[in-house]
Amino acid sequence: MSDADRSFGGASTGAGEIFQLLLDGHARTKADLVHLTGLARSTVSSRVDALLASGLVIPAGEAASTGGRPPSRVAFNPRAGLVLAVDLGASHATVAVSDLGGRILASITHALDIASGPVAVLDRVVAEGRTLLDDATLRAIPIVGVGIGVPGPVEHSSGRPYNPPIMPGWDRFDIPAYVQQTFDVPVLVDNDVNVLALGEQTASFPETTDLIFVKVATGIGAGIIAGGTLQRGAQGSAGDMGHVRVPHSPDSPRANDEDRDLEDLASGSAIAATLRAQGADAETSNDVVELVRSGNPAAIEALRQAGRDVGEVLATVVNLLNPSVIVLGGSIARAGEHLLAGVREVVYRRSIPLATQHLAIVQSPTGERAAVLGAAVLVAREVLSPANVDARVAAAAR
Amino acid sequence: MSDADRSFGGASTGAGEIFQLLLDGHARTKADLVHLTGLARSTVSSRVDALLASGLVIPAGEAASTGGRPPSRVAFNPRAGLVLAVDLGASHATVAVSDLGGRILASITHALDIASGPVAVLDRVVAEGRTLLDDATLRAIPIVGVGIGVPGPVEHSSGRPYNPPIMPGWDRFDIPAYVQQTFDVPVLVDNDVNVLALGEQTASFPETTDLIFVKVATGIGAGIIAGGTLQRGAQGSAGDMGHVRVPHSPDSPRANDEDRDLEDLASGSAIAATLRAQGADAETSNDVVELVRSGNPAAIEALRQAGRDVGEVLATVVNLLNPSVIVLGGSIARAGEHLLAGVREVVYRRSIPLATQHLAIVQSPTGERAAVLGAAVLVAREVLSPANVDARVAAAAR
Repeated sequence: MSDADRSFGGASTGAGEIFQLLLDGHARTKADLVHLTGLARSTVSSRVDALLASGLVIPAGEAASTGGRPPSRVAFNPRAGLVLAVDLGASHATVAVSDLGGRILASITHALDIASGPVAVLDRVVAEGRTLLDDATLRAIPIVGVGIGVPGPVEHSSGRPYNPPIMPGWDRFDIPAYVQQTFDVPVLVDNDVNVLALGEQTASFPETTDLIFVKVATGIGAGIIAGGTLQRGAQGSAGDMGHVRVPHSPDSPRANDEDRDLEDLASGSAIAATLRAQGADAETSNDVVELVRSGNPAAIEALRQAGRDVGEVLATVVNLLNPSVIVLGGSIARAGEHLLAGVREVVYRRSIPLATQHLAIVQSPTGERAAVLGAAVLVAREVLSPANVDARVAAAAR
Repeated sequence: MSDADRSFGGASTGAGEIFQLLLDGHARTKADLVHLTGLARSTVSSRVDALLASGLVIPAGEAASTGGRPPSRVAFNPRAGLVLAVDLGASHATVAVSDLGGRILASITHALDIASGPVAVLDRVVAEGRTLLDDATLRAIPIVGVGIGVPGPVEHSSGRPYNPPIMPGWDRFDIPAYVQQTFDVPVLVDNDVNVLALGEQTASFPETTDLIFVKVATGIGAGIIAGGTLQRGAQGSAGDMGHVRVPHSPDSPRANDEDRDLEDLASGSAIAATLRAQGADAETSNDVVELVRSGNPAAIEALRQAGRDVGEVLATVVNLLNPSVIVLGGSIARAGEHLLAGVREVVYRRSIPLATQHLAIVQSPTGERAAVLGAAVLVAREVLSPANVDARVAAAAR
């Protein structure tokens, strides 16, 4: 046999495939599973027993009897393991513990400066993870993985940030190796907008296969789900909207300016700079949000113009990828409807009708918790993949 | 059981999954398949027998004996069915017959005006298909599907063109229903650049999961393969690069122009118009190609500038999708290295380093045959999907 053949595994595998059928949360009998898979009854029986031994599956009562002893049911056990889910922003962190079903069981959120560097930030995050896990109801459950979203480009295969513009000291830092000094489990690192896209899809758009999540905050980035799959691209840098050049619009107040990167026009930092140039007291994204919430007309107009600029790039995204949902998140998007209004104004005018007739452009319905949810889902999908379930079952049998 | 459960099918299914293991072209024994799948020997045996009865699988000699009667091998039979693969351009058509392995067995290419409308064009295509199929070596093999690439947006689910700009008379025409009056088999219709992307990937970049095919001819469009999958988007209009607005470049000869759609700047028609305005005799894309090949300096510079304009949009595509290969095809791209040089000049300057360090930008290595190859692969993948193989096996058993 060739090596390619071997990668399918031998006759000992297969529990992982049966397990996938239980991920919808429904309890099933062995007879149900024989019917669903077409596998031999003896095969199903031994695999279910192995899944029960691994703890990934638990007894779930009895089905209605059709005469004789009622058959017992089994179900996915989301409490078979815990995930530590971490959302690192430019100026905040959330550390959460979830079960394998993506349910958040506990979390901590606080201000944090990402520029204090990887050792200081990760030491704090790891300590908070330990604190959350040191809980009477959680202590007995093993931690099976750590998911971390960071505010910059990441080489997903290695978990290292790659030239991250707002994360000084983090370039090529081996986040998984550092975290594994404390938690010796798989550590998956991804761009914050990728985990936001996954979390938003999971929580609010589970039927949507083509979704773009755009985060407008201190910086700007996008998470792209196309054909049902999060798209990272060949090196993991997909979704870098912030460095897309924005064509200047003839009806824009900046009509005579040069084209510029989107992040230089529409990010929280850029809007603050625009408002400062007009005499307002705005240093940060948060200052912009405060001014908008206080009803400052210049800030409101700046936000709407930022929305138009984001819309110019999204019109291109819509023509290229034809999503059915665009979700706007991040602190600037959440500062009211102004950014959204500007985006809609441009996208519906510029994109082709076939691509926009069923397109929804919405503010994030899930909000900030989408990030830790997405980080948890990222890890749960990996840990519960057929191959990894097979490996866990084999380990439990030894 | 719920309806969701039923979609997995009953115990009669599963031949299709075994069949997928044979699609790599290697012959295997029943024992190999038991080992690869973990299924019971009796299950594998009955499914292989059903696949043999359906004709999709054929005996393929004997494996080396380990004592006793040598076990017989089976293999995928690409001659179990034929695909009619059609490539319709603005001004040409290619009609080909392929086997289920995507091997082109016969083809016809000729000039044809897409604007003569669907009935005239499809009548001719169907007649040519009949002629190709009426061959002594092919007559006995059933036709199992028709794949058609057309030069405009298509609603892939229905096979209807949707507001196609250069296909007068084709808007919402039911191509599958019309073709099925002659060939009563599945008819899949897709945008020409989608089939070109599939064909190019199959022929030249089989290991590449993130590939963008850009066609620059009378019009401009892109086929997007991301995460290994052709991305059509929610309504099938993904890849519409022609209607993306191009930011004007400060170093462009058009520095004071308004931003315009890419197709209005860099398509064959647009380049011809530019050259006409300079006094050259150029009406069509072909005239442009002729001028470039004759060494006309204005035409060469116009092509290089068109490449820069295409590059402006591709720089955005690279930031958004991080492909590892960009393939340039179509008559304008094939008129020499000038378009390619312009594209490279801009993309490598504008895109982020992580996205370009392993990026190849190449002229189509496969050329015009990529279109019919892609149309054939589109149909073969559909016909040979697990569910469709199961259905065919069940029909053969009745």
